[in-house]
Amino acid sequence: MKNILIVGCGLIGSSVLRAVYHKKIFKNIFVLEKSKKNISIIRKLNIRCKIFKNIKNISTNIDLIILCTPMSQYSSTILKINKLVTSKTIVTDVGSTKELSFRDVKKKLKKNTTWIPSHPITGSEVSGPQYGDKNLFKNKWCVLIKERNINKVHLSKLQSFWKKLGSKVIFMNSKQHDIIFSITSHLPHLIAYNLVKTATDFETQKKYNLIKFSAGGLRDFSRIAASNEIMWRDIFFNNKKNMISAIDLFIRNLNSFKKDINLKKNKQIIKKLIKTKKVRKQIILLKQDINKPDFGR
Amino acid sequence: MKNILIVGCGLIGSSVLRAVYHKKIFKNIFVLEKSKKNISIIRKLNIRCKIFKNIKNISTNIDLIILCTPMSQYSSTILKINKLVTSKTIVTDVGSTKELSFRDVKKKLKKNTTWIPSHPITGSEVSGPQYGDKNLFKNKWCVLIKERNINKVHLSKLQSFWKKLGSKVIFMNSKQHDIIFSITSHLPHLIAYNLVKTATDFETQKKYNLIKFSAGGLRDFSRIAASNEIMWRDIFFNNKKNMISAIDLFIRNLNSFKKDINLKKNKQIIKKLIKTKKVRKQIILLKQDINKPDFGR
Repeated sequence: MKNILIVGCGLIGSSVLRAVYHKKIFKNIFVLEKSKKNISIIRKLNIRCKIFKNIKNISTNIDLIILCTPMSQYSSTILKINKLVTSKTIVTDVGSTKELSFRDVKKKLKKNTTWIPSHPITGSEVSGPQYGDKNLFKNKWCVLIKERNINKVHLSKLQSFWKKLGSKVIFMNSKQHDIIFSITSHLPHLIAYNLVKTATDFETQKKYNLIKFSAGGLRDFSRIAASNEIMWRDIFFNNKKNMISAIDLFIRNLNSFKKDINLKKNKQIIKKLIKTKKVRKQIILLKQDINKPDFGR
Repeated sequence: MKNILIVGCGLIGSSVLRAVYHKKIFKNIFVLEKSKKNISIIRKLNIRCKIFKNIKNISTNIDLIILCTPMSQYSSTILKINKLVTSKTIVTDVGSTKELSFRDVKKKLKKNTTWIPSHPITGSEVSGPQYGDKNLFKNKWCVLIKERNINKVHLSKLQSFWKKLGSKVIFMNSKQHDIIFSITSHLPHLIAYNLVKTATDFETQKKYNLIKFSAGGLRDFSRIAASNEIMWRDIFFNNKKNMISAIDLFIRNLNSFKKDINLKKNKQIIKKLIKTKKVRKQIILLKQDINKPDFGR
């Protein structure tokens, strides 16, 4: 593959930019970015690439187009990039939900173009190209969406692209993907937002100054609840069906905890608390976190 | 104050032990610890202190007794320590709830003994004396419970004790304390436990392997949900009334989020997500966390 086009150059897009430049994966790097502020940050990186504010000014055929915008912009973007794609082009993305966007993009994309969504499992609560990192994808999972009638040559090229960035590639279909991440990522973020909201509502109701005592637990959730609102609205809306099932299961379990507390059900509660501790051990074994106690930062 | 007795020498007790020894605050340090394993860890610290397995073997009068056991052991402990207290003794603790234990201990403690509960806002998901740290209390809040008819000389002595350990001391009554921490600490912990439980239930139901993708959010909650089960059962049970109100408020808010998602209420959800971001800024301003993005560990 010779030419890459990165569409949207925030935290993830600029990390792709840094990584492909440093690894010398492409001959030409094109960046499409609307924000003046972001463009000025990217220019200061001293990376040899062509930055465009308007897609009309790009005339080269592109081998790999990677969508790094909020998912709500995919539809309008696809209509514009259609003129740059050929049967050799691979279109991918980095979005956090897959079922809806897989269908939507497929419908709008020029016929016979390969569309294989990607989801690198990485990121942070901060946004913007200033936070990008060429090693952001290193040793992280990257899910590739494998649906029926997939172009196997292109799939293998895309897999090799992510491997060059350091990712561990895994295949799922879009339905599986959205179910799994509704629980491991989307619900936890919603819960973090909801917990911080509950604390501020409580502060208003009771006129207590709570926030200064947030080191006891609330602090950790507040970090997650500071994530980008556009990105997370898109995720919650796109994965609506699975989010609602996840919320329902969560509330059912919370009501059961409430009952245990209310009736002081010793055995039940201890059993539950011990079980969650075992999950932590699994997470460390699977290298999803390190086994270092946290005493606050 | 000449003699201190530390009752229970886990993470917090052993941190008090390390701190009072290094700061040379007392002439004699007594430790009451039942667990053989813990005693052997403490001995290896090379701290000059007298360790007792049985309270019967202590015959000195004590100036400061600090309860660092799980709260469910307070009642039985108090009955035993009564023989060591005089009118000059201050009894305190490090427990995370106050209203119930304030009354319970007061009832059982020898008449005219000063009982002023403390709550240092610090800790970790790990337990045991091997994780103790002489700087655990440094720059952390320590709440002292100030109820009516308090002995002011003793209060000032206890305040000075925590200040020597590096804490910032603040006064509350036990009712205020339990309300505030039900939101900033107890609810976040219950939510973390409940989220991990929900993920494992989901894994069982759907037969999906989720845990290996926990870097997307679940990981951070699993750390909190690995905290000591006895300690947290005691907290949930002791602060039952406030926990139930907090859970109810949390579920109300979560149902409102569910509705926003279901009806794709764009404005409402964006407003909520932006508001929680502002709380994060406050938390950093109040030095409850640092302003450093987290990309996983």
